[in-house]
Amino acid sequence: MDGGGEDDRGVIKDGEWAGWRTWEGSDPFEDHAGPFYFRYDADGTPRCAFRAEKKHMNGGGFMHGGCIMTFADFSLFAIARDALEGQHSVTATLNGEFVGAVPLGALVEATGEVVRAARSLVFVRGLITTGGEPVMSFSGVIKKRGPRK
Amino acid sequence: MDGGGEDDRGVIKDGEWAGWRTWEGSDPFEDHAGPFYFRYDADGTPRCAFRAEKKHMNGGGFMHGGCIMTFADFSLFAIARDALEGQHSVTATLNGEFVGAVPLGALVEATGEVVRAARSLVFVRGLITTGGEPVMSFSGVIKKRGPRK
Amino acid sequence: MDGGGEDDRGVIKDGEWAGWRTWEGSDPFEDHAGPFYFRYDADGTPRCAFRAEKKHMNGGGFMHGGCIMTFADFSLFAIARDALEGQHSVTATLNGEFVGAVPLGALVEATGEVVRAARSLVFVRGLITTGGEPVMSFSGVIKKRGPRK
Amino acid sequence: MDGGGEDDRGVIKDGEWAGWRTWEGSDPFEDHAGPFYFRYDADGTPRCAFRAEKKHMNGGGFMHGGCIMTFADFSLFAIARDALEGQHSVTATLNGEFVGAVPLGALVEATGEVVRAARSLVFVRGLITTGGEPVMSFSGVIKKRGPRK
Repeated sequence: MDGGGEDDRGVIKDGEWAGWRTWEGSDPFEDHAGPFYFRYDADGTPRCAFRAEKKHMNGGGFMHGGCIMTFADFSLFAIARDALEGQHSVTATLNGEFVGAVPLGALVEATGEVVRAARSLVFVRGLITTGGEPVMSFSGVIKKRGPRK
Repeated sequence: MDGGGEDDRGVIKDGEWAGWRTWEGSDPFEDHAGPFYFRYDADGTPRCAFRAEKKHMNGGGFMHGGCIMTFADFSLFAIARDALEGQHSVTATLNGEFVGAVPLGALVEATGEVVRAARSLVFVRGLITTGGEPVMSFSGVIKKRGPRK
Repeated sequence: MDGGGEDDRGVIKDGEWAGWRTWEGSDPFEDHAGPFYFRYDADGTPRCAFRAEKKHMNGGGFMHGGCIMTFADFSLFAIARDALEGQHSVTATLNGEFVGAVPLGALVEATGEVVRAARSLVFVRGLITTGGEPVMSFSGVIKKRGPRK
Repeated sequence: MDGGGEDDRGVIKDGEWAGWRTWEGSDPFEDHAGPFYFRYDADGTPRCAFRAEKKHMNGGGFMHGGCIMTFADFSLFAIARDALEGQHSVTATLNGEFVGAVPLGALVEATGEVVRAARSLVFVRGLITTGGEPVMSFSGVIKKRGPRK
């Protein structure tokens, strides 16, 4: 199944991100740390992306590790979207290895896969890149908390 | 040794955070994701803290995991400050286990220790809490890159 | 509470490990990778230990990383013993940072704490040392699977 | 480049593992926890494998987590073999998520990739499977220590 195909709620209509999605509803932290976008290829492969702005940088002029981790956390849920079945879910663990820097203006991308979707835990791993170069390898566990109210 | 005692550069003079420090210089991402503060007890124990504002929250009304990870990344460097000897340093790995939620207005604190300071790698672990309850257990490796220009 | 005080099943009676415990029942892998021992201080602090034998060494003459990880995995369950309430439980995640080597003949010790015991997940962190020097910082998540048959 | 093509030292000649390699020299811990094998496809893809014997099992009759972690640690070095350039190298970090059980007699396989080979650190991630089902997702950092004596 195409994880993003059932409807077009949350799909961006115009500009650089036309055809990409955001989560519906407001998320104050991601509004600043991002905004981050996701979509799915025809074969279901998840794609997450955003563009490095000045507000994402650290004091050294490269993307802050916390911004990269925030994008990894966002990507966990985009990658696991189908497996989470719309349930209320929270990050239980998130591990990241920082392997490359992101300069201002760069397009930052992530993809990954569900390693296993168990009854209450979903195990995900992914890779963040920019310009084809690796930025962070990450893995995490999402805990399903039950039906979303 | 008091890791922060040699001078008072970066020490806040007034308000809720009087006596706490921030890193000198501008960090666009932490200015929003934080601001975060640190100080050292007389025995050298590192203390990091900040207060949960609306901008730190996720769509569910609790602190965003990315904000908590960003504070963990900040804390790594505050905890390792002496061991880094002022060298230019970067996060190599950061692992976090999310164990508790942070509501709006809460004081969020972190402490931790250098597990080992090797020649080029510094291994750190720490714990983030709020109101005495655990929020995140984290560990990370910092890579020293050489003298700061 | 003394996590190990209720009875003396599994308590070693003689020799170097008198007063220490092992898990009851056979565990073929730990019989060789270990054997590992645990006990609890009067205040409930968990203590795990074993002595480095030739069979634990790698080709370089120091303890194999896999042996240290196996001891960390053993220690997770000793540290979390009370929180697991006798339920059938499995390791969900295990993270380790290797910070020091263990020579032949050394006494290897571990201690740690339950960071949080949730309904189905127990979060643990610990530290392995030898002769007072750190060997590995570790953290892990144990998943409770339900009553033991 | 075919990571294993330059010569046939360490290549098994007969039996189930004909054509696979082992590390040269003795490794007391892996002799028991394994033995583990590796080879490289024509395109350089690393393959690691072993067969689950009784000695690898835990008290519940499935493969011990420590055995799986030991195989992950072995696999790190087989995956990174070219990047390590024959240097003396040690595991700095190893993270694993346990997602499936391994029964007695199963063939256990691993593959993975070097995410980034930096000057002194090599970042690796991999996946352990059995019968096409995931067993463990792992990632780790290897530290190069300098020329092998």
